Amino acid sequence: MTNTHQIAFQGERGAFSEAATVAFFGEQVEPVPCKDFETVFEMVTSGQVNQGVLPIENSLGGSIHRNYDLLLRNEQLYIIGEVQIPIAHQLLALPGVSLADVTTVYSHPQALAQCEHSITKRLPHVTKRIPTYDTAGSAKIIKEQQIKNGAGLASARAAQIYDMNILMTDMQDDSENYTRFVVVGPEPIIPTGEAKTSIVFSVKNVAGVLFKTLAVFALRDIDLTKLESRPLQGKRWQYFFYLDFMGSQYEERCQNALNHLQEITTYFRILGSYPRGV
Amino acid sequence: MTNTHQIAFQGERGAFSEAATVAFFGEQVEPVPCKDFETVFEMVTSGQVNQGVLPIENSLGGSIHRNYDLLLRNEQLYIIGEVQIPIAHQLLALPGVSLADVTTVYSHPQALAQCEHSITKRLPHVTKRIPTYDTAGSAKIIKEQQIKNGAGLASARAAQIYDMNILMTDMQDDSENYTRFVVVGPEPIIPTGEAKTSIVFSVKNVAGVLFKTLAVFALRDIDLTKLESRPLQGKRWQYFFYLDFMGSQYEERCQNALNHLQEITTYFRILGSYPRGV
Repeated sequence: MTNTHQIAFQGERGAFSEAATVAFFGEQVEPVPCKDFETVFEMVTSGQVNQGVLPIENSLGGSIHRNYDLLLRNEQLYIIGEVQIPIAHQLLALPGVSLADVTTVYSHPQALAQCEHSITKRLPHVTKRIPTYDTAGSAKIIKEQQIKNGAGLASARAAQIYDMNILMTDMQDDSENYTRFVVVGPEPIIPTGEAKTSIVFSVKNVAGVLFKTLAVFALRDIDLTKLESRPLQGKRWQYFFYLDFMGSQYEERCQNALNHLQEITTYFRILGSYPRGV
Repeated sequence: MTNTHQIAFQGERGAFSEAATVAFFGEQVEPVPCKDFETVFEMVTSGQVNQGVLPIENSLGGSIHRNYDLLLRNEQLYIIGEVQIPIAHQLLALPGVSLADVTTVYSHPQALAQCEHSITKRLPHVTKRIPTYDTAGSAKIIKEQQIKNGAGLASARAAQIYDMNILMTDMQDDSENYTRFVVVGPEPIIPTGEAKTSIVFSVKNVAGVLFKTLAVFALRDIDLTKLESRPLQGKRWQYFFYLDFMGSQYEERCQNALNHLQEITTYFRILGSYPRGV
């Protein structure tokens, strides 16, 4: 590891995960692109980078379940922060290319879907959409192959990195398109100020058990911000629950709640307490 | 519509959804293959078929969120039944092809992943995996293109339909691989015997509201079997909740619970009451 603070993220340079990395850490860190989420976890676990930034939930698409599963599997890592950024898709093209030249739009299938109405309405010359593996990847392809009749849908950051022009801004059909990211590291932190805590647990499959679980928090006026279930492998129709609540595991009220919760769980782990993202 | 009872499902003939259709209705119905989930919903809504069968949850992969979203959107349809079947991947090849001839395995990427360990261990001659759009589609491709050095991973039903041989059974690495399907139709039913009810609702974003929601059921000893959240479009970090409970909406106890629930919901809909699947 160099002296620079290195942060692993999934995707090409200019991906929204890189934008989230910079939004959280600032420009002085070195974002390290990784081919998939597993690699981000491996890079942090092995100490090749300092921390990792992972998308956990999108306001339109819902939870990114793969990362919930990987948080469970990577027991040595802790959530140390969260950050949310707007997913604003810009229409990027090579310098010299104008709107009238663009007949093909390239991007990740989800980005193409999120901009479908805009493409039809605002880009009457476009007759073709080509799916790519990544939003920033669409910019990279256009740059490398010097495609003159195409444009990509990607972040404003991708325009900077690949030295391309933004022909049209905010192509997303729904403006309430946000992604929430978690920052993971090898050491837990003790947050100051307004904090959140993420936990994962499983419970016995008995009547009313989820109600009892939530009572642990409700009886102490602890506010929940998220409850997600994922299948427990090898146990048909049983689940792990991922729960986020307002407060830190180092506050007595929350400690009491977590002790109470462990009276009814069969598996229990604190993923981390961290400052609430804004 | 013909006189035969027609049931829409997603996938090629021989797909696991077709096996689920037959497991629920018996062999006398006519399964109608559809290219995607949306088409299944459309076929039922427009009356082109009698009912539809849709996967809703897999014991390894979790909920099929797309179908939860489509249940919400298709307000004219009701859940009238459920069925779960084991997902057993068989190795299918053309007649005359033996295990020693097989160097390539074709199937849906998820099926290839679910059988990866088995392929490596039990099929030493295999050097190549080719992803296809569908498990049964892999059998169809091998049949149509008369591929002699390849085998597909698909259901036993696909072997019958495409007249292929099963070279090896139960290729899935994890035997607890089950998928639960719901049956949807244009009219609700009144179930007799042990029943389940599925509902969808949203609540005000206030402290303890999910606890109050579950109290509605816990205070009446109504057992929950599933709770799933999906994003509420246009409202950042707010959710629809999909909840299954034991009992029928026509039982007084459950009616009271549902009336009580509507005191705290901002949106509420009963997807259906139906006999519990075995």
